[in-house]
Amino acid sequence: LRRGEFGLIDAFVAQLPRPPVPFGPGDDAAVLAASKNPLCITTDAVVEGVHFTRPRFSLSDIGHKALAVNLSDLAAMGARPTWWLCALGLPKSFTNAHAASLARGMAPLAKRHGLQLVGGNLTGSPVLTVTITAAGETGDPLLRSGARAGDLLYVSGALGSAAAGLRAGARAALVTAQKRPTPRVELGLVAARFASAAIDVSDGLLGDLGHLCDASRAGAALESTRIPRARGVSLDLALNGGEDYQLLLAVPPRRAAAFERAAGDITLIGQLTRTRGITVDGRAASGKGFDHFRR
Amino acid sequence: LRRGEFGLIDAFVAQLPRPPVPFGPGDDAAVLAASKNPLCITTDAVVEGVHFTRPRFSLSDIGHKALAVNLSDLAAMGARPTWWLCALGLPKSFTNAHAASLARGMAPLAKRHGLQLVGGNLTGSPVLTVTITAAGETGDPLLRSGARAGDLLYVSGALGSAAAGLRAGARAALVTAQKRPTPRVELGLVAARFASAAIDVSDGLLGDLGHLCDASRAGAALESTRIPRARGVSLDLALNGGEDYQLLLAVPPRRAAAFERAAGDITLIGQLTRTRGITVDGRAASGKGFDHFRR
Repeated sequence: LRRGEFGLIDAFVAQLPRPPVPFGPGDDAAVLAASKNPLCITTDAVVEGVHFTRPRFSLSDIGHKALAVNLSDLAAMGARPTWWLCALGLPKSFTNAHAASLARGMAPLAKRHGLQLVGGNLTGSPVLTVTITAAGETGDPLLRSGARAGDLLYVSGALGSAAAGLRAGARAALVTAQKRPTPRVELGLVAARFASAAIDVSDGLLGDLGHLCDASRAGAALESTRIPRARGVSLDLALNGGEDYQLLLAVPPRRAAAFERAAGDITLIGQLTRTRGITVDGRAASGKGFDHFRR
Repeated sequence: LRRGEFGLIDAFVAQLPRPPVPFGPGDDAAVLAASKNPLCITTDAVVEGVHFTRPRFSLSDIGHKALAVNLSDLAAMGARPTWWLCALGLPKSFTNAHAASLARGMAPLAKRHGLQLVGGNLTGSPVLTVTITAAGETGDPLLRSGARAGDLLYVSGALGSAAAGLRAGARAALVTAQKRPTPRVELGLVAARFASAAIDVSDGLLGDLGHLCDASRAGAALESTRIPRARGVSLDLALNGGEDYQLLLAVPPRRAAAFERAAGDITLIGQLTRTRGITVDGRAASGKGFDHFRR
């Protein structure tokens, strides 16, 4: 840490819950008590010009989204969030007030989910970047690979809203879905008791379902009329639009009724099959998510 | 993860030790077994144009340095490295061969220190960025705050070499010190048995000593003739030059002889004092490290 950085750091961390443990941020590394349960760890970054532009995104929107996408990964594991680290790349023009705004976008999520900031890093950068590492605990993690043919497929919320929110003139609710996705942490904790596999829908339903199917060595049959989507969202966006951060869950049929009662905001959209590949209404479909590196 | 990213990821991880545990990389989050010891966690980033330029730094140099600076933080805690996550921001021109070169710079350090890659993230970025989160275990972490007046101050290796290596026409050994710093992990493990406090010298001796003194509520008296420096390195660079990634250690006098026998490559440079502030040869000194954000 360098001198001018301390003001930025103070402005940032003042907004955020910090740990009640003896040693947290401030040393060369954070020291965390040994945990009784396995740890789930994820890291995800948002980069200006790639994941957001300004001023379309406010600094608070950016802060929210950076933390939400990491929490969504923990939700997909059925993990209870515990601590996080935040590495910021800041343009030279970034002020203490900017740092506070960024953190204010993160604070409600951190508080709601009991996530404690234990460390971080600050560096100069040509564009704003926020790279978060988040950890959660779980006795029995939800993996992508635990499902089998016959398991029912559920998705939370509505799909395609975030992608629709990118369009000119999109309704406010869709724009909010794009800028301020809600990580389904509580649903993940419920799902951990019932589901055989899970993944968060970050790259589009077909793409992420493909990952779950590959890991579980199964195929999937979806019914288009069942796929939940908000008003004005096309089936194509619901199948292929990214950044919804809903959960896709596989549940063995014998646990389906209990899961539906416990979970609330979920919709049955299809079933895993022995035959590999994904079908929608019986026709072969292929996932194609957004790819920064496709040539 | 998106389609074109998989090739980049495969090229990258093929070079690196991965965990022998049931669930490692590949799911939404890594799952790690509960640890018996407290965890030390750190995150640090290197950014093109800020921490390195190309082609002055090869991709291997960049990989080495990105991991070394994180290992140095763990060394300063007296922690034994265990696992890491790697978040990459890659320009569009980055190829699979580039990803492999970057990882090849990291592999020797990861192997030497038993550090296992458990996860990561890939995103587009206008410049190359490498943000690493690294964890280590320690029964009894070295903090900055554990020292007291009377403790002896030691530093490892030689100081100022990395800063001198930035100069035009610098000797090869100094350039190597700049590009490929050696994290003092083994020394940190030894120091954990003897030292009262530690910090790694990343921002310059006076600056980092200032942090240790502030945390330990003490001052320090240094003797300039004792400060170890390589041939051609000025006292000013040894006091203020950054990026050496040596360890600065405070050791109670009663343990000094045993520490010196156990530690090897260390030099006594002074002592902590009750009077706050840092003196060099009895005259007040002030640390000023490099600051990306100073105005």
